[in-house]
Amino acid sequence: MPTAGIVVIGNEILSGKVVDTNSPFLCQELRELGVDVERIVTIPDAVEVIAEHVRAMSQAYDFVFTSGGIGPTHDDVTLEGIAAAFDRGVVRSDSIVERLRRATGEEPNESQLKMAQIPAGATLLDSGDLWFPLVVVDNVYAFPGIPELLRKKFQSSRERFRGIPFVLKRVFVRLMESEIAEDLHALLCEYPDLLLGSYPKIREESFRVLLTLESRDAQYVQEALDSLLARLPEDSVARVE
Amino acid sequence: MPTAGIVVIGNEILSGKVVDTNSPFLCQELRELGVDVERIVTIPDAVEVIAEHVRAMSQAYDFVFTSGGIGPTHDDVTLEGIAAAFDRGVVRSDSIVERLRRATGEEPNESQLKMAQIPAGATLLDSGDLWFPLVVVDNVYAFPGIPELLRKKFQSSRERFRGIPFVLKRVFVRLMESEIAEDLHALLCEYPDLLLGSYPKIREESFRVLLTLESRDAQYVQEALDSLLARLPEDSVARVE
Repeated sequence: MPTAGIVVIGNEILSGKVVDTNSPFLCQELRELGVDVERIVTIPDAVEVIAEHVRAMSQAYDFVFTSGGIGPTHDDVTLEGIAAAFDRGVVRSDSIVERLRRATGEEPNESQLKMAQIPAGATLLDSGDLWFPLVVVDNVYAFPGIPELLRKKFQSSRERFRGIPFVLKRVFVRLMESEIAEDLHALLCEYPDLLLGSYPKIREESFRVLLTLESRDAQYVQEALDSLLARLPEDSVARVE
Repeated sequence: MPTAGIVVIGNEILSGKVVDTNSPFLCQELRELGVDVERIVTIPDAVEVIAEHVRAMSQAYDFVFTSGGIGPTHDDVTLEGIAAAFDRGVVRSDSIVERLRRATGEEPNESQLKMAQIPAGATLLDSGDLWFPLVVVDNVYAFPGIPELLRKKFQSSRERFRGIPFVLKRVFVRLMESEIAEDLHALLCEYPDLLLGSYPKIREESFRVLLTLESRDAQYVQEALDSLLARLPEDSVARVE
């Protein structure tokens, strides 16, 4: 199954000025596609730090998604960092300069030309959604940090990441987590490949714990669900979805 | 100035089922206190992975905050991971067992007793907010994953993290980022210690870019702000906060 790592780049997130909504979006979308996100790291706008994390993730996972740092200002250094991760330089892309001209109807200024500086040998993916392409180096995809733009770019490239999706069952339980923990442990002994989540909720009236059962094998999940429901005390299950 | 790293622990976040609101909360609070958050990492509920990241962050930063994985179920392995990070074992805390008895009025069951297993030599911080203490090992603080509980625990311990806060000025600009990038570059040449952020906004009517100017030196920020306002074209600034 494909695996992925996400690198969120931006001082504004570490300093609490902006809440990162891109990594939750990517996690949800990738889960639906059947891709396992194994790591998210949030780092400052610093070339060496970006290079270090992109290099490590590129080696560890099938896909790496970066978010942020690809605009025209002083703190937009993601593409430089990705280039450094692969020991490459950055070069001016004539194709992007041409798109800039078409998009603005003018000769690009120095700052706009900065956006045409991409890692040597990068692939440009076009999908007609926005004036700029998605820049890809090896297995690393450089997404923009502005949430609306990231979503557009992801939607137009998502099919290339598809794996085998998970089947998810949710069980809402009226008991405390500590009252059912032993049942969950026994369930996992019987179904060791089950992905079992247990999430206590406070301020909920109809249930106290949400259990999630997941596998890529629909029959396995159904059998585990039946086994769980047989284990739990009568009347303790509020509902199953 | 104190630095910090945040370790968010939980498969539910990587798989897109739960959105992490704890790290944005901690980033905002720590910024107010004058602590520099340098890294956030989100990892699965796996002892070895937790140990590896906690160990690295404990050496790199002044404070490490973990979020999640300290309940009674099979996937709550954070304290075991923290113990492993410091090459320690876990031991049963009689003090926590006694609190469990007082909180529930009953003899704790096996699953509840799991919550009394803490790293050997850990410090327990009490503040009277909740029945369980904040578990601390060296510079690592193990916070609960449930947002309401994390907030309570943080509020009652926050003073021990205080540094020198930043002074922040915000400038809302009506021009595109690429039209002011050269002014920003010149500003940074004059004020190299300024923390300058530039955040383009779409779907905003009154401005197109939010600039943030920060320093721990209030006079330095004010001088940089005056210099910026003198550089920007007339009528380009919507407002300053």
